[in-house]
Formats: sequence, structure tokens, C-alpha cells
Amino acid sequence: MTAVMPSVTTGPVRGSRKAYVDGPDGLRVPVRRIALSTGEHHDVYDTSGPYTDDDAAIDVHAGLAPLRAPWIAAREPGTQLSYARAGVVTPEMRFVAIREGVDAELVRSEVARGRAVIPANRRHPESEPMIIGKRFLVKVNANIGNSAVTSAIEEEVEKMVWATRWGADTVMDLSTGKDIHATRERILRNSPVPIGTVPIYQALEKVNGDPARLSWEVYRDTVVEQCEQGVDYMTVHAGVLLRYVPLTAKRVTGIVSRGGSIMAAWCLAHHRESFLYTHFAELCDILRAYDVTFSLGDGLRPGSIADANDEAQLAELRTLGELTAIARSKDVQVMIEGPGHVPLHKVDENVRLEEEWCGEAPFYTLGPLATDIAPGYDHITSAIGAARIAQMGTAMLCYVTPKEHLGLPDRDDVKTGVITYKIAAHAADLAKEHPRAQARDDALSAARFEFRWLDQFHLSLDPDTALAFHDETLPAEPAKTAHFCSMCGPKFCSMRISQDVRDYAEAHGLTTVAAIEAGMAEKAEEFAESGGRLHLPLADA
Amino acid sequence: MTAVMPSVTTGPVRGSRKAYVDGPDGLRVPVRRIALSTGEHHDVYDTSGPYTDDDAAIDVHAGLAPLRAPWIAAREPGTQLSYARAGVVTPEMRFVAIREGVDAELVRSEVARGRAVIPANRRHPESEPMIIGKRFLVKVNANIGNSAVTSAIEEEVEKMVWATRWGADTVMDLSTGKDIHATRERILRNSPVPIGTVPIYQALEKVNGDPARLSWEVYRDTVVEQCEQGVDYMTVHAGVLLRYVPLTAKRVTGIVSRGGSIMAAWCLAHHRESFLYTHFAELCDILRAYDVTFSLGDGLRPGSIADANDEAQLAELRTLGELTAIARSKDVQVMIEGPGHVPLHKVDENVRLEEEWCGEAPFYTLGPLATDIAPGYDHITSAIGAARIAQMGTAMLCYVTPKEHLGLPDRDDVKTGVITYKIAAHAADLAKEHPRAQARDDALSAARFEFRWLDQFHLSLDPDTALAFHDETLPAEPAKTAHFCSMCGPKFCSMRISQDVRDYAEAHGLTTVAAIEAGMAEKAEEFAESGGRLHLPLADA
Repeated sequence: MTAVMPSVTTGPVRGSRKAYVDGPDGLRVPVRRIALSTGEHHDVYDTSGPYTDDDAAIDVHAGLAPLRAPWIAAREPGTQLSYARAGVVTPEMRFVAIREGVDAELVRSEVARGRAVIPANRRHPESEPMIIGKRFLVKVNANIGNSAVTSAIEEEVEKMVWATRWGADTVMDLSTGKDIHATRERILRNSPVPIGTVPIYQALEKVNGDPARLSWEVYRDTVVEQCEQGVDYMTVHAGVLLRYVPLTAKRVTGIVSRGGSIMAAWCLAHHRESFLYTHFAELCDILRAYDVTFSLGDGLRPGSIADANDEAQLAELRTLGELTAIARSKDVQVMIEGPGHVPLHKVDENVRLEEEWCGEAPFYTLGPLATDIAPGYDHITSAIGAARIAQMGTAMLCYVTPKEHLGLPDRDDVKTGVITYKIAAHAADLAKEHPRAQARDDALSAARFEFRWLDQFHLSLDPDTALAFHDETLPAEPAKTAHFCSMCGPKFCSMRISQDVRDYAEAHGLTTVAAIEAGMAEKAEEFAESGGRLHLPLADA
Repeated sequence: MTAVMPSVTTGPVRGSRKAYVDGPDGLRVPVRRIALSTGEHHDVYDTSGPYTDDDAAIDVHAGLAPLRAPWIAAREPGTQLSYARAGVVTPEMRFVAIREGVDAELVRSEVARGRAVIPANRRHPESEPMIIGKRFLVKVNANIGNSAVTSAIEEEVEKMVWATRWGADTVMDLSTGKDIHATRERILRNSPVPIGTVPIYQALEKVNGDPARLSWEVYRDTVVEQCEQGVDYMTVHAGVLLRYVPLTAKRVTGIVSRGGSIMAAWCLAHHRESFLYTHFAELCDILRAYDVTFSLGDGLRPGSIADANDEAQLAELRTLGELTAIARSKDVQVMIEGPGHVPLHKVDENVRLEEEWCGEAPFYTLGPLATDIAPGYDHITSAIGAARIAQMGTAMLCYVTPKEHLGLPDRDDVKTGVITYKIAAHAADLAKEHPRAQARDDALSAARFEFRWLDQFHLSLDPDTALAFHDETLPAEPAKTAHFCSMCGPKFCSMRISQDVRDYAEAHGLTTVAAIEAGMAEKAEEFAESGGRLHLPLADA
């Protein structure tokens, strides 16, 4: 194959190379392999697709190779849920098991009980299988989407590549512009991760932006169009019922979900029940045919601390539970979307009620922001809520960028949003004691203690930034191997004292409380004889 | 008074003016008064001192006016704890009560039982009283300190002013350079907030950086020197006992506290018990004479996720509890320092054990970082842990900047660290349902919903950044009053649909579920007659 000059970011992330772990039946599962100066390496979960391969030959017009095509061709139509219920372990499940470091049977059983989903449209064979569920690593979604102003298709592909380079596990294309179909086509053909959409946005474009002119027929045709293209999961705000709309009238911030407000406007305009609700069974039949996963939207999610966990939000959540049961009865996979803006003492209840009412379907939340008072920092206000809600069992977190509530995120904002959410997700993985989570922390901390600076940077979520920050204070290359850092300088370093303490204690057999107590008198005497000086090298510097 | 050209940042924060709330006995308590476009205003807690007054006349060589001097002169020597125990409500307690919006008797009783402290050295009369305790607003500390390289004294004063401008409640001066005494003097004379130090750093300078040459006498003289200058609270690592040192030998990151490693080195060098521990009662007598508050340091805090809540850390915490009892028996106020690096599922235990073992003394933690894998983003990794530990009852949070573990923070890093920690503290205040916490969220959210853009910016923790982010996408001035934002554009805005829904529902009496259900049939008919179009203005745009 001739290498085509790529228009998107390619090549390995600093300090690492793409590697593939071989599995049964010829499965090759990608990892990012971080080489350490000790000669060892540390493999981490990798979502970046072939773009970070050493010899990446990317042609965005041709798209990625259809990894899953032979698996799909080899079996009867069905969904991951129907296979799992039938006791079948699909290649997707085996792939996921290797990625997560768990048994394939765990994957199958979690999918079968609906507590995990594998969003994988039959018509998106380019995707690398991944799983969303509380027993697995917490996942992060990044939103992209063109605007009316700028919409070069390759720019959108680059946004997807950029987000997955830093660890986004899924990407939602929220485009609303004119080239919406063609843009989505390019994203799908080039995406190694599942792609989600909100079909009502495109349906609204088809009726010139007037919610009242929407209809089941326009919506249905849009869903079929997107299923055909390969969209892996779709947000459907089928729980915004007519009778819930008045519950939002007294809110501080009303309805803040776009999809929710569109459906509320439609319901009020027609004084009829939502067509998404009344036609839900037909919608299930369409999604089932492609194995598209529902992401049941929380159109009435709170838009402020004041509105959290209110009657409107919880009424909709109960309805999403009813819809979950219908979808599952038709073998359609389901996730449930959650808030939004929630103070910390009301976060846990969201997970408890979602699990109880929605049959433990994977919860997929937007943050939530733990306070409203810091626009410009909402990646942080929301990461605080996100870490907690994920610790409690939320399976996927939709990222929030620093520009939330203020403007459109640029390239740097997307990266900041993804990294911030990887932090929240990983903090939850640690708290849930995922078998693979702590190994990376331990490897980085050991590198830090041993002054292996480059190893520390390379093991971090963002090696480029860690390196740049270090070099601002200590730009010289030798500093990266020096046994000190800029905080304390060469003369006085607690890490170094600590190592000296460790060496000293071990050399003198002072490795237990009993030993040190027994030795106190004797050693004090010895110390006095030696001239009263502990020869710590740092003190001589 | 002649206005002196200040060498530090002065003037009001964008969108606000300093105001003073009058209290009994001539007390004047500062607030930051945010003017809203509705004609109302919103007052917020303010730590910035006279620097943000409209007519700030600052002369860093003269220092601030000694606000507390007459109160101190009018009473017998004693500590806030001794007065509280005697049933006396001091002017400091009354001042604090107005600042927090609580009853002065609550302040007195919390101080009396040791669950809150008012760090206020008799010799730092320039400070505006503040309280640290779980029943009050969560506080934030910012660290400053000169280095061997740059140490212009006015620069250090500016760092203090800059940190308090953005909301730091206390400042620790961790200087280690040559002009350490003169630098501290200038900081104290110009600081409206309590100043903390770690005296062992200066003591170490006096023995040329060799821990083994430290002695009780050198340390004691240093403490007296700093008490005389007006330091309000001091970190003392008196819980690092000889027999605990070997407990750190098997750790991934040993001892990471500077003070802890110094004392560990001293103990091992001499094979004797720490002089801070053996002379603790004498130390109490010194601090009592000035009403300096102990911040009992956690010299054996974990430096990594792997080391959290281990034997070394918890052994020291038990000892800090013993020392707390001794200090309180001598009427000395006490805080307890906490970690550090702790995974989320081990955070709560830290608070529980601290409260149980240390008689509910205010807990003052450094983060904790919820993961080690994101150097360059440790303000975020630690804000996640900080919000949780504060929600559980931690009274003060020591900030962490983006440069933590990598280099020295610059001006932007200090601001980012402070704002990030104000977010964590406020998230906890909301979760604890502090009576004043949610009002600001509600005011900002209402402004957001009503498209009062400037009000939204001015009510935020960082109005400058919120405004700048907004202007990147929509720089035109009219956009700040426009009823839309850049995320959805003028044509399609969920906030606007939501307002239309609200207006429509209210106009048609559809404000309850019952009403809407009763009206469904009738209204649908009416709708059909009207031509089937809900006249939402946005659809016409």
C-alpha cells in the first residue's frame, strides 16, 4: 500500500509505540506500549486506532480497514445482546475481554443481563470493539460536530482523531450544519471508536428548524439513514412526556437539553404525547436490525444546582426505565443518560435510582457539574462530580471542556476536556479497584521516587505537557536524569532524604519497629562515637 | 493620607466593588459586592483586604493598618481558645460570625470545643479574623515562598496579594532563601489573611542545611523569632517518631514531606526521639503566649496512591491526637494536617480517623490527589480528592497548582490553583448545605437562563476568564446582551425554547400535571384550529 500524506494527526504518542496483543482466533488487540528506562515496558489501554501506528498509512478518503467485516459476515443477524443471551461469545466480546484484562465469560454475562453494552453497528465494521458497563473501565465520550460557519469535513475527522489520541473511548457527532450526512460518513469510515449521534438534530434540519413540524415519519427516516451509515449509538429523548413538561416551568433553568426542549416544544405545540414514546417499539425494531445501541436521553436533566434531582428529572428517569424494558425485550442494547448539574450530596441518589428503575443499564452522565459558579473552569467543576458518579457505578462520562457555557471548544479545549475526564474516569477505576488501574499509578510513582523523569512523563496522561512544564523551570537535558527537581533544588530534596533514610535503615537492619526500638540505645552510642554526623550525601551538596 | 503608587495589584475585581458590612461595636466586615444588571447586588465572602478597595492607598513599606490592635490592647493575654472556654465572645469571633453569616455563639462554642480555630497571632494585628472549622465555609490555603534564585521582597508580597485577590483564605510562606526573615516581615505587615510557616525550614538554614545538626535550641529560637514577627499558625512535624521511620522503608515513595524527612533524618542520625515530640509541652507554652495555632504536620503522609492510609501514616495520626490533647490542655489552638495522595475509596477513612483520634480538631489537607497519573494536571487530580474530603468534614484545603511535581508555579499557576480550590471548597459547602453557599449558584444560573451575560461573568469565580472565553467566539459587544450564545447560535437555543415553553405553559394554565392532562384533548383541538403551529419566535428567526 502506498502511504498517503495524512491530513490528520498521526504517529505515536510521546514515549510510546503502538503494539498489538495477540488473542485467540487471530485477534489483535491494540495497546499503547510505554518503554521505560529500566528496560521494562508498561502497556495501557489504547483507543487511538491505526493513526498512532508507527507506519500509519492513513487515507481519510478511503477510510480504515473493516476489522470486523469477517466476523459480521460469518454470523446470522443479531445483536450483541441476543448473542449473549443465547450463550454465544462473539469475537467482539473476546476482543473486549483482552482489552480489559478480564474473562470473556464475564463480558458475555454482563452484556446478557444488560449491565454492559458493546455499541457496534453492523455497518461500522471499522470500529475496534469496546464495552461500557460498571464492571469494566470507566469510559469517556468526547463531543464533536461542525457548525454553520466552519465545516471542512477533514477538520471533523481530525477532531475525532485528536480526541481519541488522548483517550476518548467514544465520539458523538453533534453536527447541525448543511453537510451533516457527508460529514458523518467521513467520520464513521475513519473512526476506530463507536460513534454516537442525536438524530433529532438532523431531523430538525429537515423541517427547517421548526420543532412543531417534526413528525414520526421524518424522524424514522433520519434514524434509518443514520443506521445505514453505521452510527453505533443514538440519543433518543423518548422520556420527555407531555405531562412532564409543566414540571419544568418553576425551574431556575428550565429545560437545557436541546433534544429535550425540541420534544417539549413539539408536545406542547400538538398537545399530544411524544412520537418518540408512542413509536418506541417501532424504533426498537429499526435499531435491532443494525445492532445500534439506545442511549436514552435525559431531556429533562437539570441545568443548575437548584434543579438537581427534581420531580421533572426523576419522572423522566422512571419512564426511561419502562423504555429500557421494552428495548431489552427486543434484544436492543440500552444505555441511560444522566445529568448534568448536581451538588455532591445528591450525586449518589442518581446512580441508585437509575440502577433500580432502569435495570442496571449502563449509566452515561454529562459531568455532573458540582457547582455553577465557575464558568471557564467547567471541565473541573464537572470532573469533581464525574469522578464521584463514576465511583458509584456510572459506566461512561461525557466530557465537558473549559468553554462549556461560554463558546465553542478549540483543539486545546478538546484535549483538556479529554485529559480531565480520563483523570475522573481513572480516579473511579482506582476507587472501584479495577484490577489494572493501580499498576499505572504505581509505575509512575516509582519513576517519580527514583528520579526517572522521562519515565514519569511518558507514563502520564499527557507526556507533552508534563515535559513542557518541567522544562520551563529546568530546561537543561541533564535535569531530566538529575536526582533532584526544581521545587527544592539539588541541596535539599525530601525524596532524596527519604531514599537515604531507606538505605540507612536497611543497612542497619532498622526495618521494623521492634528492631529500631531495640537498637535505639546502642545506635545512639555509635552515633556519638562517629562524631555525631549522619552522612547523608545531600547535606554535603 | 497620600496615595502611594502601589507595587502590588490593587483595585476591584471585575464587576464588583469592595463594601463593608457594619456590625456591632463598630465592626466593619469586608465583602465583595457584585452589582447585577437587575439593579440588585450579590455579596460574597472576601479575603483580599484593602487592596481591592476603590481608593486603595497601599504602601508595602508601611504595611496595612493594625485593625485588631485596639482589641488586643484592651484584653488580658490569652488565646481564642481560652476566651471561648471562659465564655467570652471576642471581637474576632463577632467579626467571623458576620463574615460567615452565623451566630457569634456558634463561633464561640466551636472554638471552645476545639472543632474550629481562629489563627490570629497577637503580633499580627493587620489580619482580618477568619475561622477554620467544619461548621463554617471550607477554606483554601495558598503556598508562596521565595527561592534561592529570585527573592525580591516585593515580589513575595505581590504573590500573597495575588493569591488572596482570587480567594485564598490563608497563605503559607515556605521561603527557604537568604532573606527569609525580612521577606516574612514584609508579608506579615501587608497580609490581611493569617500567615502560616514551617519553622523547621528556617531552622535548617541556620545549620547550613544539615538535618543532623538541628537541635531543640535552634528550633525553639526560630519559633520564638517567628512568633514575635506575627506568624499565625505553624506546621510542626512532632508526630514523626523514631519508631515510625522504618515503617516507610517499604513504601513506593518513602517520605515526601520535607519536614517529615528532615525529622526522620535527625531521628535516625541521633537514634533519639524527635526533639519536637520530647519538647512539645515547652513548644505549647511558647505558642500560647502569642496565640499561635498549631498545624500539626503529617510528615509521614503518603506520596502516592500505593502508600495511602498505610501503617506509617496512621501511626503518626494517632500521635498527633495525643499532641492535640496536650496542646488543648494548655489552651493552644490546633489543626491537623492530612494527605496528600489518596484514592477516592480511602478518602473518607482519613476524616473519620482524624476526627476520632484528634478530638475533631480542624482537618487541613493537601488535596488529596485521587490519582498519580496526571502530572501537569495535579490541580485537577487533587481537586477531585479535595472536594470529597471537604464534603466529609475537612475544614481547610491546601491548594495544588498545575506545576506540582514538575516545577515552580508562576503567577498564572497560582491563580489557577486558587480558583480550582475555591471550586472544590464551594462544591463541599454546597454538599454540606452551608446556608450561604447555594445563593451564588442560583444567582449565576438565573443570570445564565435569562441571558444576562455580564451578570453571569461577574458572579463567577473568575470573571476575567469567563469574559475572555466568551469573547473568543462572539467578540461583539451586543453578544453580551443577546438572547443566544455561540453553542447553538441565534436560530436554535434550548434555553430560549425553554423560556418559550414556560411562557406558553403559564399562559395556558398548563402549570401542573393534572391541568395538562385535563387540557390535552381540548388543546389539541384548539391547536388544529390554529393551523397547527406553535408560534415559537425562534422558529421564525
